[in-house]
Amino acid sequence: PRPIRATLFPGDGIGPEIAESVKQVFNAAEVPIEWEEHFVGNKVDPRTESFLTWESLESVRRNGVGLKGPMATPIGKGHRSLNLALRKELGLYANVRPCYSLPGYKTRYDDVNLVTIRENTEGEYSGLEHQVVRGVVESVKIITRQASSRVAEYAFHYAKTNGRQRVSVVHKANIMRKTDGLFLKCCREVAKNYPDITYEEVVIDNCCMMLVKNPTLFDVLVMPNLYGDIISDLCAGLIGGLGLTPSCNIGEGGIALAEAVHGSAPDIAGKNLANPTALLLSGVAMLRHLKLTDKADRIHDAILNTIAEGKHRTVDLVSLNSGAWSS
Amino acid sequence: PRPIRATLFPGDGIGPEIAESVKQVFNAAEVPIEWEEHFVGNKVDPRTESFLTWESLESVRRNGVGLKGPMATPIGKGHRSLNLALRKELGLYANVRPCYSLPGYKTRYDDVNLVTIRENTEGEYSGLEHQVVRGVVESVKIITRQASSRVAEYAFHYAKTNGRQRVSVVHKANIMRKTDGLFLKCCREVAKNYPDITYEEVVIDNCCMMLVKNPTLFDVLVMPNLYGDIISDLCAGLIGGLGLTPSCNIGEGGIALAEAVHGSAPDIAGKNLANPTALLLSGVAMLRHLKLTDKADRIHDAILNTIAEGKHRTVDLVSLNSGAWSS
Ligand SMILES: CC(C)[C@H](C(=O)O)[C@@H](O)C(=O)O
Ligand SMILES: CC(C)[C@H](C(=O)O)[C@@H](O)C(=O)O
Repeated sequence: PRPIRATLFPGDGIGPEIAESVKQVFNAAEVPIEWEEHFVGNKVDPRTESFLTWESLESVRRNGVGLKGPMATPIGKGHRSLNLALRKELGLYANVRPCYSLPGYKTRYDDVNLVTIRENTEGEYSGLEHQVVRGVVESVKIITRQASSRVAEYAFHYAKTNGRQRVSVVHKANIMRKTDGLFLKCCREVAKNYPDITYEEVVIDNCCMMLVKNPTLFDVLVMPNLYGDIISDLCAGLIGGLGLTPSCNIGEGGIALAEAVHGSAPDIAGKNLANPTALLLSGVAMLRHLKLTDKADRIHDAILNTIAEGKHRTVDLVSLNSGAWSS
Repeated sequence: PRPIRATLFPGDGIGPEIAESVKQVFNAAEVPIEWEEHFVGNKVDPRTESFLTWESLESVRRNGVGLKGPMATPIGKGHRSLNLALRKELGLYANVRPCYSLPGYKTRYDDVNLVTIRENTEGEYSGLEHQVVRGVVESVKIITRQASSRVAEYAFHYAKTNGRQRVSVVHKANIMRKTDGLFLKCCREVAKNYPDITYEEVVIDNCCMMLVKNPTLFDVLVMPNLYGDIISDLCAGLIGGLGLTPSCNIGEGGIALAEAVHGSAPDIAGKNLANPTALLLSGVAMLRHLKLTDKADRIHDAILNTIAEGKHRTVDLVSLNSGAWSS
């Protein structure tokens, strides 16, 4: 069969070396993927208003799938953050992060198994801000029925097709009655079409408290942009951090762009110290999206076994497992 | 010496019984306080636009100190949440929550010792929301130089006078450049006047991840309203929940209103099941504010010893310490 084409953004800093690990592992597992590699440009592309090249976006659109390493947004004016530009240009409306305790990697929690689904395009990320008078500034949070229903639908569909029992919407509608209220309303409407999935609403402050007390209370969480930003990182913390958590963005037309959400760690780049786990697990998420389930399972098991074995540990895992980490 | 007058809002649900415990404990410790008790009214007082009576607010203003149990905001239109009304009417600009692991009360964390300081009057709580067109709603977050500098000043002053080493500002200025940017700017300015206190800035998503991984990284945290709402509850979760955490609001003219921030738990009200710890510890915070340090220390020790002894445990502590809690 013809190999599947997928776009690869190795990214900056440690990006290229962890992307190399993914390619090696995928080769070893004989994954039928042919990578189209794209690097971040060295000047602003006017068509993307960022350092992302138009060709790289075309590549993702054409292939429908991609894998992305960490990108360091260059400092300066006149362009957008690379992550935000990607979300906007590819209409990446849902950020999906399965988050589960890794057997063999000890944290204070050994019972995490949940998925955060973040609305990825609007809310507090509208970019609408201005100074009202000197010393008084405001920013605008936008919630639309369209984006809210779309991510809610994605969350329930995900729950159903992944054997999950419950969807919890995270909100602060007791304060933001109209914006978060609309988000809730859209979720309630979608919930009606999924009678087999338990639907629940939880206020964000209470949600964070419950998550650190007892994460087993949650299954699938869906929420507006900023709450998703916060809660997905909190959950990553429960199981060890961003170096261990996969992430996948779902976009218009069914695009899936998997990504490691950790930083580009320029201080350790090129020293063969970086942990490729998050990018590898994101690669696995991409394989699942492509329904290459056998390959996904095989690589996933290999990653977990390698971590559990404890022989090949990157420094982050070694130091995290001692000291501050032993509970 | 003449006793000090303080306002007491027993509140609703379990409020009156836990307030009764506070009175008993304060009596036993011979605290020189005379309580002025005020209950939530049964109709909207037009002068407060809520079920809070004007007289009760006058009492706090006159006494300068108060203690508040949980208040259940009655459902219906035409009035404000009681908590929000209190904050507004009394200008309660800083919510202060010391959060530390209780010896004898086991959670997954035994090393928490931090203080969250929340701007309590503006930000996402502006109440400014509207529908732009059908299916598109917006809410406005307001940040002012005045409120930001005031809470920053409070945080640094608190750190200095309480032997704390470091103040971390929690923000999302990489996205909300103007609003959170102004908050940051005010904090930076205040920090300059406190050269002995380490100043640090941390993005909210990263902050939540660090808190669950290693809360010892933090000392005093200061932040805008919604982040404070989220992070203070997250931190409460680390040490056992809202039933165990004291809270104190600082207002204009030096008013201090200490409060239990848990709910009114109507389901267990009147059954002698409620845990008075949060209200007691809030009472201790009030005593510290009044510089009744000996009394505060004595009651504080008694509370911690009682919990550690494990003989007199309310159901929340018993059940929390088993099952989900054993790590
Ligand atoms: C880098 C930042 C703009 C981004 C966000 O806030 O979305 C990051 O935290 C993330 O979660 O991808
Ligand atoms: C009840 C609610 C309005 C309130 C808030 O959001 O401030 C509560 O969560 C708190 O922290 O006191």
